Amino acid sequence: MRIAVDGMGGDHAPVEVVKGCVYAINELDIEILILGKKEVLETELTKYQFDKNKIHIRHTNEAITNEDKPVQGIKSKKDSSMVVGLDMVKNKEVDAFISAGNTGALLAGSLFRVGRIKGIDRPAIGSVYPTKKGISLLVDAGANVECKPRNLMEFSLMGRIYVEKVFGRNSPKVGIVNIGNEKGKGNQLVKDSSELLFKKCPNFIGSVEAREIPDGIVDVIVCDGFVGNVILKLTEGVAMNMLSMMKEQFQKKIQYKIGAIMLKPAFREFKKILDYTEYGGAPLLGVDGVVIKAHGSSNAKAIKNAIRQAVSFVENNVVELIKDEIFKTGDEDSGK
Amino acid sequence: MRIAVDGMGGDHAPVEVVKGCVYAINELDIEILILGKKEVLETELTKYQFDKNKIHIRHTNEAITNEDKPVQGIKSKKDSSMVVGLDMVKNKEVDAFISAGNTGALLAGSLFRVGRIKGIDRPAIGSVYPTKKGISLLVDAGANVECKPRNLMEFSLMGRIYVEKVFGRNSPKVGIVNIGNEKGKGNQLVKDSSELLFKKCPNFIGSVEAREIPDGIVDVIVCDGFVGNVILKLTEGVAMNMLSMMKEQFQKKIQYKIGAIMLKPAFREFKKILDYTEYGGAPLLGVDGVVIKAHGSSNAKAIKNAIRQAVSFVENNVVELIKDEIFKTGDEDSGK
Repeated sequence: MRIAVDGMGGDHAPVEVVKGCVYAINELDIEILILGKKEVLETELTKYQFDKNKIHIRHTNEAITNEDKPVQGIKSKKDSSMVVGLDMVKNKEVDAFISAGNTGALLAGSLFRVGRIKGIDRPAIGSVYPTKKGISLLVDAGANVECKPRNLMEFSLMGRIYVEKVFGRNSPKVGIVNIGNEKGKGNQLVKDSSELLFKKCPNFIGSVEAREIPDGIVDVIVCDGFVGNVILKLTEGVAMNMLSMMKEQFQKKIQYKIGAIMLKPAFREFKKILDYTEYGGAPLLGVDGVVIKAHGSSNAKAIKNAIRQAVSFVENNVVELIKDEIFKTGDEDSGK
Repeated sequence: MRIAVDGMGGDHAPVEVVKGCVYAINELDIEILILGKKEVLETELTKYQFDKNKIHIRHTNEAITNEDKPVQGIKSKKDSSMVVGLDMVKNKEVDAFISAGNTGALLAGSLFRVGRIKGIDRPAIGSVYPTKKGISLLVDAGANVECKPRNLMEFSLMGRIYVEKVFGRNSPKVGIVNIGNEKGKGNQLVKDSSELLFKKCPNFIGSVEAREIPDGIVDVIVCDGFVGNVILKLTEGVAMNMLSMMKEQFQKKIQYKIGAIMLKPAFREFKKILDYTEYGGAPLLGVDGVVIKAHGSSNAKAIKNAIRQAVSFVENNVVELIKDEIFKTGDEDSGK
């Protein structure tokens, strides 16, 4: 399997990206193509011992930054690591592409250069959400800020397949984010989508209140991209804020300080549960190829885990399965 | 000052409601009218020593439950504690009404029986949000699941006045919940509302990412009621889930158990920060009278604090100030 990795994308590129690639080939039976400035990437690679047949560099002249406007960046920077990587997916020169760079640009580029799966109206970002029971997948995590019921139906279908295959979970349960469980609750989008999902989506359990999301009561959490992005970022904000407020509290007495020292390893274990680097990246679902968005602040471990996730995405034929499923269920609603 | 309290509303009514009323008259210079089944309320009151001139009972035959459909409940149960309480606000027999009962019914009842402030299109629920810096006010916390820019403008204006007067904060900052700070981010509602708010709302600082909400970077957090409800409930869910996951973690080793015992008072202090009972209830902003929704699971302390909040709401003339402000700024946009 050949995986392309954006060597110029992310807050800690190229250092952590290159290191992550080295970690990945030591653990996985794959070949990696790192895209970006040749000199820079080569210098980074000299730091490590690794099988030279397994990592190659493909020079690109440009890089899309977080300051670039998504569509404009993709259209103007044809020789950027991101555009070249996406073209390689399109042309089947590689099996997958991973980038920790500009999310909007990666999404726009996936649409323009790789294309949508036929029958999918809007691709979405799936994001791993850590819960009490393990992990859930949140779709859409921010790609589509305005949605129609049809979109949420597609998010459910794609999320379900992804969770079944990549997380290895049988008959994953799907729920829609709502402000209550009672019938008639919610805005028009949620009401109309629920109606459609009850008809079309196996294992759709209906509404999930935001309070229940961290309990992991469903495997796939479906919502529009605005709400999804709020959920992801608020969860991060609340968790970080709680830990920092606790830390402050623990400084107030010597007894607390000692207690906190005794609990340090427990806190460390606990933080691991919340740590996105453990879970890899966010798949772009509905794109006609395997594209993974790694977190912007990815370190080497996060990059390695995103690569591992891409491998599972490819091996489990998720794109083909989505195609089959959308062909089966989507036709009659394609106008909605 | 005379305050009416719904003796039949809330998970712990009438026991905790009556107790909360007794606490309140011991701390505040007010008279309370508790509404509900006379026999039941009288039995509860016999448990306490208090100034008999300060608490009275007004018998009502019916009670609106959480199972009642809001509009239907208000229309059919004319002799319920909730409808009678709201009518007393309307007729100025009391200065304020507090209920821990059915939120939807209280909102519908406030609209039908008390009425909106002239010029306000949609009243909203303001909810206290605990942050690192203290508290912010979130508007709308769930009253309006579909909004127009005009509504968010009104939420900002009302929230700003409430925070200034009731929280006693000078020139409160207002921010709109968005999925990023960059210009052009957000769904259509947020983009259009931001444009309007920059023109009309003093101290509007623009977008606030969900991640930043718990940091308390603004005093008034504005969003539609769907998003607001998700924010409130997710915050509760994440916080509760984190504490329960930590607790589990702390059981794993004897060292952790000891550390946890040493930190127990620190955790207790910390939980207080998150505890809604400390902050009172949620004001219904835009209603032409003072109505406070106390949390459904309110205990006596929460009821007492909701009463205290109502007193401050009344004393500071917030309803009149909103009327003046909406008259000044609202006219030219009233069609939007």
